[in-house]
Amino acid sequence: MINEKGKDKCGVFGLWGAPDSAERIYTGLYAQQHRGQESAGIAVSDGAGLRAHVGMGLVSEVFSRSVLDQLTGKAGIGHNRYSTTGSSHAGNAQPLMEGYIGGQVAVAHNGNLINAGLLRDNYEQRGHIFHTSTDTEVIIHLLASHHLSKEDPLTEALQHLQGAYSLVFLFADRIEAVRDPWGWRPLVLGQTEDGHDCVASETVAFDAIGAKFVREVEPGEIITLSDSGVSSRRFADAQRPAQCIFEHVYFANPSSRVFGDTVQIVREKLGRKLAQESPVDADYVVPMPDSGRAAAAGFAAESGIPCREGIIPNRYVGRTFIQPTQKQRSLAVQLKLNAVPEVIADKRIVVVDDSIVRGTTTRTKMHQLRRAGAKEIHLRISCPPVRNPCYFGIDFPDSSQLIAAKRDVEEIREFLEVDSLHFLSLEGMLSCVSRQPEHYCHACFSGDYRLNVAKPVSKLDLEPHQLKMFR
Amino acid sequence: MINEKGKDKCGVFGLWGAPDSAERIYTGLYAQQHRGQESAGIAVSDGAGLRAHVGMGLVSEVFSRSVLDQLTGKAGIGHNRYSTTGSSHAGNAQPLMEGYIGGQVAVAHNGNLINAGLLRDNYEQRGHIFHTSTDTEVIIHLLASHHLSKEDPLTEALQHLQGAYSLVFLFADRIEAVRDPWGWRPLVLGQTEDGHDCVASETVAFDAIGAKFVREVEPGEIITLSDSGVSSRRFADAQRPAQCIFEHVYFANPSSRVFGDTVQIVREKLGRKLAQESPVDADYVVPMPDSGRAAAAGFAAESGIPCREGIIPNRYVGRTFIQPTQKQRSLAVQLKLNAVPEVIADKRIVVVDDSIVRGTTTRTKMHQLRRAGAKEIHLRISCPPVRNPCYFGIDFPDSSQLIAAKRDVEEIREFLEVDSLHFLSLEGMLSCVSRQPEHYCHACFSGDYRLNVAKPVSKLDLEPHQLKMFR
Amino acid sequence: MINEKGKDKCGVFGLWGAPDSAERIYTGLYAQQHRGQESAGIAVSDGAGLRAHVGMGLVSEVFSRSVLDQLTGKAGIGHNRYSTTGSSHAGNAQPLMEGYIGGQVAVAHNGNLINAGLLRDNYEQRGHIFHTSTDTEVIIHLLASHHLSKEDPLTEALQHLQGAYSLVFLFADRIEAVRDPWGWRPLVLGQTEDGHDCVASETVAFDAIGAKFVREVEPGEIITLSDSGVSSRRFADAQRPAQCIFEHVYFANPSSRVFGDTVQIVREKLGRKLAQESPVDADYVVPMPDSGRAAAAGFAAESGIPCREGIIPNRYVGRTFIQPTQKQRSLAVQLKLNAVPEVIADKRIVVVDDSIVRGTTTRTKMHQLRRAGAKEIHLRISCPPVRNPCYFGIDFPDSSQLIAAKRDVEEIREFLEVDSLHFLSLEGMLSCVSRQPEHYCHACFSGDYRLNVAKPVSKLDLEPHQLKMFR
Amino acid sequence: MINEKGKDKCGVFGLWGAPDSAERIYTGLYAQQHRGQESAGIAVSDGAGLRAHVGMGLVSEVFSRSVLDQLTGKAGIGHNRYSTTGSSHAGNAQPLMEGYIGGQVAVAHNGNLINAGLLRDNYEQRGHIFHTSTDTEVIIHLLASHHLSKEDPLTEALQHLQGAYSLVFLFADRIEAVRDPWGWRPLVLGQTEDGHDCVASETVAFDAIGAKFVREVEPGEIITLSDSGVSSRRFADAQRPAQCIFEHVYFANPSSRVFGDTVQIVREKLGRKLAQESPVDADYVVPMPDSGRAAAAGFAAESGIPCREGIIPNRYVGRTFIQPTQKQRSLAVQLKLNAVPEVIADKRIVVVDDSIVRGTTTRTKMHQLRRAGAKEIHLRISCPPVRNPCYFGIDFPDSSQLIAAKRDVEEIREFLEVDSLHFLSLEGMLSCVSRQPEHYCHACFSGDYRLNVAKPVSKLDLEPHQLKMFR
Repeated sequence: MINEKGKDKCGVFGLWGAPDSAERIYTGLYAQQHRGQESAGIAVSDGAGLRAHVGMGLVSEVFSRSVLDQLTGKAGIGHNRYSTTGSSHAGNAQPLMEGYIGGQVAVAHNGNLINAGLLRDNYEQRGHIFHTSTDTEVIIHLLASHHLSKEDPLTEALQHLQGAYSLVFLFADRIEAVRDPWGWRPLVLGQTEDGHDCVASETVAFDAIGAKFVREVEPGEIITLSDSGVSSRRFADAQRPAQCIFEHVYFANPSSRVFGDTVQIVREKLGRKLAQESPVDADYVVPMPDSGRAAAAGFAAESGIPCREGIIPNRYVGRTFIQPTQKQRSLAVQLKLNAVPEVIADKRIVVVDDSIVRGTTTRTKMHQLRRAGAKEIHLRISCPPVRNPCYFGIDFPDSSQLIAAKRDVEEIREFLEVDSLHFLSLEGMLSCVSRQPEHYCHACFSGDYRLNVAKPVSKLDLEPHQLKMFR
Repeated sequence: MINEKGKDKCGVFGLWGAPDSAERIYTGLYAQQHRGQESAGIAVSDGAGLRAHVGMGLVSEVFSRSVLDQLTGKAGIGHNRYSTTGSSHAGNAQPLMEGYIGGQVAVAHNGNLINAGLLRDNYEQRGHIFHTSTDTEVIIHLLASHHLSKEDPLTEALQHLQGAYSLVFLFADRIEAVRDPWGWRPLVLGQTEDGHDCVASETVAFDAIGAKFVREVEPGEIITLSDSGVSSRRFADAQRPAQCIFEHVYFANPSSRVFGDTVQIVREKLGRKLAQESPVDADYVVPMPDSGRAAAAGFAAESGIPCREGIIPNRYVGRTFIQPTQKQRSLAVQLKLNAVPEVIADKRIVVVDDSIVRGTTTRTKMHQLRRAGAKEIHLRISCPPVRNPCYFGIDFPDSSQLIAAKRDVEEIREFLEVDSLHFLSLEGMLSCVSRQPEHYCHACFSGDYRLNVAKPVSKLDLEPHQLKMFR
Repeated sequence: MINEKGKDKCGVFGLWGAPDSAERIYTGLYAQQHRGQESAGIAVSDGAGLRAHVGMGLVSEVFSRSVLDQLTGKAGIGHNRYSTTGSSHAGNAQPLMEGYIGGQVAVAHNGNLINAGLLRDNYEQRGHIFHTSTDTEVIIHLLASHHLSKEDPLTEALQHLQGAYSLVFLFADRIEAVRDPWGWRPLVLGQTEDGHDCVASETVAFDAIGAKFVREVEPGEIITLSDSGVSSRRFADAQRPAQCIFEHVYFANPSSRVFGDTVQIVREKLGRKLAQESPVDADYVVPMPDSGRAAAAGFAAESGIPCREGIIPNRYVGRTFIQPTQKQRSLAVQLKLNAVPEVIADKRIVVVDDSIVRGTTTRTKMHQLRRAGAKEIHLRISCPPVRNPCYFGIDFPDSSQLIAAKRDVEEIREFLEVDSLHFLSLEGMLSCVSRQPEHYCHACFSGDYRLNVAKPVSKLDLEPHQLKMFR
Repeated sequence: MINEKGKDKCGVFGLWGAPDSAERIYTGLYAQQHRGQESAGIAVSDGAGLRAHVGMGLVSEVFSRSVLDQLTGKAGIGHNRYSTTGSSHAGNAQPLMEGYIGGQVAVAHNGNLINAGLLRDNYEQRGHIFHTSTDTEVIIHLLASHHLSKEDPLTEALQHLQGAYSLVFLFADRIEAVRDPWGWRPLVLGQTEDGHDCVASETVAFDAIGAKFVREVEPGEIITLSDSGVSSRRFADAQRPAQCIFEHVYFANPSSRVFGDTVQIVREKLGRKLAQESPVDADYVVPMPDSGRAAAAGFAAESGIPCREGIIPNRYVGRTFIQPTQKQRSLAVQLKLNAVPEVIADKRIVVVDDSIVRGTTTRTKMHQLRRAGAKEIHLRISCPPVRNPCYFGIDFPDSSQLIAAKRDVEEIREFLEVDSLHFLSLEGMLSCVSRQPEHYCHACFSGDYRLNVAKPVSKLDLEPHQLKMFR
């Protein structure tokens, strides 16, 4: 359900020690492309200095052979971006690369800080300048501010951050991989077949470069990759965990291992649970490709209703499709998904999808199925209704646009014009993952935010006399 | 199984009477993109003259807003191309547009002529020149040669063609849609919601523009679309039909209605038949995405073995992926498809795919599944072994590269290193389609060619008295 | 005076025997870029087959390193094009490359045929087809038609052409360079420092690749370049010569040797003669850059009036300048040329330019000089008024747009709002070149056309017995 | 003499109050393209916020119609860049746009700061970060640092700068145009025909948009353009002036009025003075196009030796020319300039050029003239030998590459293989401009630097306790 889902924030990747780092990072970003299609970038270190290339678009559009060839180095980091903070323009593409008293640093960020605005205000008051509108830039200001006064400036800088952050820093001599104390976003440590250490948002990136998964980066942990190998330190005690359950529902690649579970397996379980919660008498289960496929398989297995492919996606429709003139516009929606009347006509079908955000696209698709002759449409959604904004890295539309924000399930069913509708319960959803329910953030469904999003704080200390320095 | 299958030849499209013809043709070509990704083109008529734009690449790469805006006209034709004859360069992109004694004509061709070389030789002997290496250009020479001497020069020209051809001609005042007397390639007639007539290779293109399917163009029929509506004439008696069974096995879009059957339904039946012919005791059926998905569903339904998604495709890997350096190359294959170990490990799996051509990519994938821990791999292919070249529009590799050309099934099984292997029988395959077995061409499997491909003929009569026609 | 002059038709280039032919041809085309900026192309032969790359735009835009690297061969031809016949689109770019009974041939053409339409009609009657709207394509039809019936089909084909043509043909085994019997357009033979033979429109292309000028290709001569060296044959007696005097006035590069004279020297003489014909009492001679520079130097030397640079061109303004909105449009003209008030203000100036075609741009520039404070403007033009169309390769605008077509000199002076105006006389102009006056075509000034442009003829003989040749 | 001269630093432009500001700025940048071809950019204000577009390449490459259309606003600034500090990459392109406590600001800079490194060090010590390697970024840090503590933070910030700077700042509500107290680089105030105020590096930009020159921005002056019109204030007393004489010798457009003189007139005088200082018995004066043209005219007028165009430039050779393979490389130099043997052969010629930097290209050209047959070559250069680096905005090569750094005139003559060589004397040069000799910086010739370039200073006050704030 392209263009209507919450958009995934970002993917990060880091690799130390391989002479062909840029190529492997490129491959890793390709594997994580689903985490952000707005911009991509790679920064490399040759041991002495950094070099970076970033650009708008897909990994395949940003990098060419000649660009990759110029990114020589023995280590590097990469980033797939979908903007959550910062508007969509080239200047905000990551990794951000900056110079400061400690030399050069590049940083790639997956997550969202809730106190970035406050911190930025503080820094602007002190005379600092900002060239992006990202929350990431403030992290480098913090790092720079503490460089001379603290033994471990990174640890110090991180004390000031509130929110979700899986960060990969590239310095000339090391990579520092950081996961916030709540563990909102995934971050994993791996090792290539030829013995180089790497970090990534998802294990699918390791598979792509033939690396093996070693372990998760722990919430509150900094892992350093360098010529001396891997080392670890803590910058904070782990907080009550807040792992984003939406990674399992929709975002992460099905083959990735996220928060201790393989995504595909979780999604099959969500489908099974859905069948238990909301059984229905029907002829076929029809998956919504590709997001509902795993849950549909689970639903079919649990219910015993056969699964058939009744909706065919067009793999070529993307950002570049030129919208037809007004009159033909509604027809063009059919280009993305095509119903197969011979499967659907005169049948009672269970359509399984992962989530509903705005509802308008879902409605269009339900109409399409109806036109193809479906006798009954029973829609099953493998998560609860999305009712609240996410402040930790998922780019849902405004609450005003969330169909579930002000409608109950029956009203949504009427809007979608389906015969029955069921959303998986919160408990049902949480029963499908391995860790205890309290380990997950499900605020978008439940409103239970781990941090006080209404009142972010800054611990930056700004004595009045300090401003005198600018005489 | 990208890059290893026989490549589909082409898609054609035509639309008469709509002021926004170019936009609708563009949408139709998008829907038929799977039929050819090498080049694309549109030619339009404003009633007086023709204008065309063709280019190398995907429809989305060839056309921009400004290009479409310049293609004003009330009618037009379009083409998706994958080269079968003619090398891969811009000059061979279609529609071909030419001037001749009858004015301007543009033509889009799906198929392959077996006597094009002979005809070209004849014409070169007479002093004609050729600017492409396509078999299509010879058709226009035939049309031009008969323009003055014959009442219906198109009908006359078509007498000379041997082979497969679904053709759409654009003249200033009409479209002529032609299907060869054997009916090798599909060609269908439709009508838009606002009453304009159209033709396409596949019904999926009609769905994309909101048109309804009217009927197939009959083998040996010419259908004319013009301001006077639709009219039909025959240029030849229908021959013993030779509808390409491979359209059902692999090429056509699953949601299209081809040769009287919906492709998706046929593929499910192929899977069911496969399960009947070659039952196996296994834990799961795993479809090879996306080509084996429908057959896998059929296999699962028939066998009762549950179907699970154990192989996840990366939707972003395409032509633009930059191959890594040699050492990492083998790893990059994993980028395209990712096995899910939690589904596969220690399991006996039935992998269902549509066909095997060269075998090398299949072998790599089987290894990938083995590394993911599969205990037993039972490979089931929903068509017989491909042993012979196609002369009628499918671009298989040379026989020397077809794995089944010189190996029996057991040898192939050994090469692929799977525990068991079964190809659907010819009879099994033909039992899954509605028409009688003798209606289909299956020469790539059986070697039973409808035409004497070793001895194409030219009926061009070069007696002196005939040459007078060129006065 | 960009955009207002008659546009030069084309430049051609050929080189045999050098392993890096494409690179040298590229350099030669660069040197001849002034002869056509619409499209460029190179075709090469590796001894067995031909390969070509053509495209719209400047040489620098059409060719990249990777394109040049693919044009491997031991010989090749190139073309700079400005369209005279054939509309401005990619399909018309040259060299045209075609297949015919003789194999492959590519051709580059500078000139214009007056009977191309007739010949095309003849061929269309016979059933031939045309894929371009150029007059060049008909030449290849002629070549193909005579291939089997004649010992020297090229010589035979050329019999049928009426008009101006400097042609370079590339066959797999040779280059054939042809100049029409009237010698309208230049064509010269040269030799590189390392002994390879070459032909070009202008000697400036030889200078660019370090080749030396050997001699002109004679009117009515075919020169063959091949592995056997250079050979020559005549295909026609030389006609009364008709060398285009406008090459000297405006088109050719000043450093080229054209029709036996160095262009720069001729232009200086035109300026001297202008000073003799029309002396004026003035403070400074001001050249119109860059077209009037040589004549202005001559005028200054002859008159004794000092020459000063009072008009400064902007070298960066080209095709890509984005026109400002209507209100600012007139101001943007000033971007191209900037008057220097300190040179011009309160001065009586003689402005020397090469020619006036439409007059509108000249008028704008005269106003610019007036605004810069010129007290008196005496405009001197180094050729007679252009009153007639050219049918032989110069793309003047329609007669209706030629300022001199219906205005006498006094009326033009009034239109331009200058204090005095003189056009060099026909006799004066012809006294500045070395050959006898009757050797030059000056029909655009005098109306004295060498061929009956109102009645082109075709000698194509279409008796039945001749058609037998096409067996 | 492309590619060998000192490279001009930059051009700046600003315009307040016109609804089509971006278009006019675009035109102004086009007119100033000679001041920097590496990158270009425009920032606009709509009264509330800023928007910018910058890119690598020529103005024509960086801006398209659609980009310009998005730069809506009532005011804006623009920049042409050639890097002096900061390496050549997209991140350094100007205008720089930043956010700070005062809101948004964009800045365009022509010049070079000698204490930028010191200031940057100071700021990095305080924890600031830098995202470019330009000296311009430090100016915004200064502005931001003084925003809260000072009534006029811009005036305060400028106190800290040492070196050459003509700056144009864009704030949402005003433009501030600043010229350093020494007046190294030009900066002029103008007004459009429809009454909008503007500033530019050179008056040629005013001519291009139809604006009139009002006056120079004074050294040490800030001029504010806003909805309230133009206002002025001083931020420093004017220092002993140091106007760059090289602007007159080579950099500025001939039609511009720079430092009170029209460049073209100054260059003619330089040529006259050269003839006085170093008369020679010769047949012709030959200008080196285009840089030596004005001086050659002056030399010819003074000496009475006729001036002839003996060297023809190729206008199409630019950055995009693909270098031929090694063997042909030396020949390709001839593509840029072509000698006219008929003018030069057997003649004693005086070649006039503006300056010699490295000497290698000059040597190649002298050889070219010799090969064209020149009997005697007398080279006259309209400035003294360049012996010292410039720290104020001219990008000369390293001293080690300056031919005059370690060679006397006779040694240079021998290297160039000319018959005689004369450089204009320092006194002679300074006698050609209107202002007193002490008003000009000529350190590149004389070594007389106005500021102690070996010991730049920073007045930034950094009390130790101030660093405590970063607890």
